[in-house]
Amino acid sequence: MDDKLMLMIPGPTPVPEAALLALAKHPIGHRTNEFSNILAEVNENLKWLHQTQNDVLTLNVSGTGAVEAGIINFLSPGDRILVGSNGKFGERWVEVGQAYGLNVEPITAEWGNPLDPALFAEKLAADTSKQIKAVIITHSETSTGVLNDLETINSHVKAHDEALMIVDAVTSLGAFNLPVDTWGLDIVASGSQKGYMIPPGLGFVSVSPKAWEAYKTAKLPKYYLDLGKYRKSAAKNTTPFTPPVNLIVALHTTLRIMKEEGLESIFGRHERHKNATRAAIKGLNLPLFAPDSHASPAITAVAPQEIESDKIRSLMNKRFDIALAGGQDHLKNKIFRIGHLGFVSDRDILSCISSLEVVLSELGYENFTPGAGVAGAAKVFAQ
Amino acid sequence: MDDKLMLMIPGPTPVPEAALLALAKHPIGHRTNEFSNILAEVNENLKWLHQTQNDVLTLNVSGTGAVEAGIINFLSPGDRILVGSNGKFGERWVEVGQAYGLNVEPITAEWGNPLDPALFAEKLAADTSKQIKAVIITHSETSTGVLNDLETINSHVKAHDEALMIVDAVTSLGAFNLPVDTWGLDIVASGSQKGYMIPPGLGFVSVSPKAWEAYKTAKLPKYYLDLGKYRKSAAKNTTPFTPPVNLIVALHTTLRIMKEEGLESIFGRHERHKNATRAAIKGLNLPLFAPDSHASPAITAVAPQEIESDKIRSLMNKRFDIALAGGQDHLKNKIFRIGHLGFVSDRDILSCISSLEVVLSELGYENFTPGAGVAGAAKVFAQ
Repeated sequence: MDDKLMLMIPGPTPVPEAALLALAKHPIGHRTNEFSNILAEVNENLKWLHQTQNDVLTLNVSGTGAVEAGIINFLSPGDRILVGSNGKFGERWVEVGQAYGLNVEPITAEWGNPLDPALFAEKLAADTSKQIKAVIITHSETSTGVLNDLETINSHVKAHDEALMIVDAVTSLGAFNLPVDTWGLDIVASGSQKGYMIPPGLGFVSVSPKAWEAYKTAKLPKYYLDLGKYRKSAAKNTTPFTPPVNLIVALHTTLRIMKEEGLESIFGRHERHKNATRAAIKGLNLPLFAPDSHASPAITAVAPQEIESDKIRSLMNKRFDIALAGGQDHLKNKIFRIGHLGFVSDRDILSCISSLEVVLSELGYENFTPGAGVAGAAKVFAQ
Repeated sequence: MDDKLMLMIPGPTPVPEAALLALAKHPIGHRTNEFSNILAEVNENLKWLHQTQNDVLTLNVSGTGAVEAGIINFLSPGDRILVGSNGKFGERWVEVGQAYGLNVEPITAEWGNPLDPALFAEKLAADTSKQIKAVIITHSETSTGVLNDLETINSHVKAHDEALMIVDAVTSLGAFNLPVDTWGLDIVASGSQKGYMIPPGLGFVSVSPKAWEAYKTAKLPKYYLDLGKYRKSAAKNTTPFTPPVNLIVALHTTLRIMKEEGLESIFGRHERHKNATRAAIKGLNLPLFAPDSHASPAITAVAPQEIESDKIRSLMNKRFDIALAGGQDHLKNKIFRIGHLGFVSDRDILSCISSLEVVLSELGYENFTPGAGVAGAAKVFAQ
C-alpha cells in the first residue's frame, strides 16, 4: 500500500495535521500587525523552548545555515577554536571554520563514539593566555546517533571563561533537556524540520549577552547571516528580510502544541522512544552503533553486519511505506538510522519495530525470536 | 468583511490554491528518488523560466540571500565593483559589498528615477586596465517601482568584457522578459514570493560559465552560500543541505502552471496590469512616482501629495481587506505601492482600482471624476 508514508528519518520529521493546514493558509503581508503579533508569540515560545532569556533569532536557512551564523557572527579571521568532530556534522563545522580562515583544532573521536570531554579540558586548561575563542560541539550527532556529553564539555568551557560555547543542537533541541540559561550556553543553533515538528526552511540561533559582546569586535564578513540585524528587528517584532511567512505561521501552531504538552513530557517521550527502540534492536540481536551511555534521544543507528542496510531500508519502504535513513559517507550501506524525533508517538515506534521484524525475516535474517523486538519495546512502554 | 485578504503588495504575492494544497502535503524525505524526480523537473523548468542553459540554483534563503550569494561567490576582497543605487535594494547591495570589503562605487540616481546607463558606460570605458570586476543592478527597484534599463547597461558591461553582470531580478523575473542567454547575463538572482507565485523561503541564482570561471579564484569566505556546493548537488538532482521540501513541491506546481500559461502570456499580462494601473492612477489625477519610460511591470508606486499614503493603505485594508505596500525609509507615508506581480488577474486590478476610488472619496479627495480610475484601466483591458 502506497501513499501512506511514515517518516522515521531524523528530518524532515512528521508534521501534525494542524501545522500542515497552517502551512496551507494564504500568506499574509509580513509588515503587518497581524504578522508581528504572530512573531511576538513565536519569539516568546522559542525562549520558553530554549529555557532562556537570551535572544532566540529565526532565520530563513537550514540547520547548517543556523550553525554557520552562530559561528561567524562572533569570531575574527585567525581565531583559535576547538571543534568536536565525531560524525558528519562535527566534520562540517570544521569545514565551516576553515572556509572562514579560523584556526581550527578538531577534537575527534571515531564515528559512533562520543567525544571525550577530558580532551577539551586539557586544551582549555593549557590555554592560559586565553587564545581559544570558541568551542563548537554537535550535541546530538545525527549521522551516528551519538549524544555528546555537552554538559561536561560545557563545564570546562565555563572554567576557561574566555571561550564561547557554540552548540549544534539541531537534533537535540526539543528532544533533550537543554537548559540554555542554567548551563550558560552562549550560542545554540537548531532547525525547523526536527523537534519543532514543521517542514524544513527555518533555522534558529540563541545568543547570550557574552556572545553579543564578542559580536561587537568580530570581523568575519556577513550580511544575510548577520545576527545583529535579526536582533534589532526581533526587538520590534519584525524581520530584517522577508521571512517564510507560511513556515512561521506553522511554527506558531506547533510551538503552542509543544507548550501544551510541556517540556518534561516532551523530553520524557523522546527518552522513552530511545529506550524502546534500543531495547527492540537488542531483542533482535542487532548491534547498536552508539553506546547506551551516549545514545541520542532523536535517532538510533543500527549496524546489521549480516545484511546490507540499504536492503532493509528499501524493503521497509516498499512493504510498509516506512522511510528510514541510511548511513552517510563511509557508513553508506553499513548502518540504518531510525528517527524518533518530534511528532512521534509510542504507536509509531511499535509500527516501525514490528515492520522491521517482518522485513528482517523476509531478508533471511533468523537470529532472533519472532516478536522479540516488539517485546523489547513493549516492556519499556509498559513501565 | 474580514478574512478575505487580497494581497497587492510586491511580495508575498498571491498564491494559487493548487500551490497552497501542495504546501500542505506532508513532507517526504529529501534523499529519495521521489524528491530527486521533483527537483529534476523544477531545475529544468527554472532554466525555461530564465531562458538559459546556465545552472539555476535553488537556496533556502530570501531574495537578499540569493543576491548576496550571487555577489560573494565570484569576488575577492578589494575587488572594484559598480553598484547601481536608486532605491532601497540598490542601497542594500552597496551595503553587502561594503560588508565584504569590496571596493564599491555606487552609481546613484534619486529614488523614483532610473539609473543613467551613460554613467556606467563612462566608468567602464575608462577602465582600460580592467579593474572593475562586477556591475550590480537592481532590475525592478521594488521600493520605487522603477524598472532600470538593464539591457543597455548590460551592453556596456559586455563591451568591457571583464566585469560580471550581476542582476537583482527579484521583482522582474517572471514578470518581464529577461532572456538570460540572449543578453549574456552572468548572475541573476530572484526569490520565490514574487513571480514564482509561492510563499517566501526560496532564493534562486543563475550562474553563467564566465561566472564559474571567476568562482575558481574568488576568495570571499562562504559555506552555506557557497554556490559551488549547490551546483555539484544539482548535477545529481539533490541539494547540499536539507531543502525546504514543501516549498519545492509547491514550486513544482507553480512552474507547471507558468509553463502552461507560457512566457509571452505571462509577460503580456504583467505589461497589461502595469498599463492598466498607471492609466487608472492618471485617471484619478494622482502622481505616479516612476516615469512611464521606466515603469516596473511588478509594482506601481503612487505619491498622493494631498493625502497621507498610510491613511489610504489603512482604509483600503479596513474597508476592502486589500493590502497595499507603503513607502520605505524616507518615503514612509509619502507613497503607496500597488503590487501586480505573479498570480494577479485583470479582475484583481479592477477590484483594487474601484476600491481605491471609494477610499479616496471617503478621505475627502475630490480631484477626480468618479469612475475615471476604473475607466482608465478598462480602456487598457478592452484593447
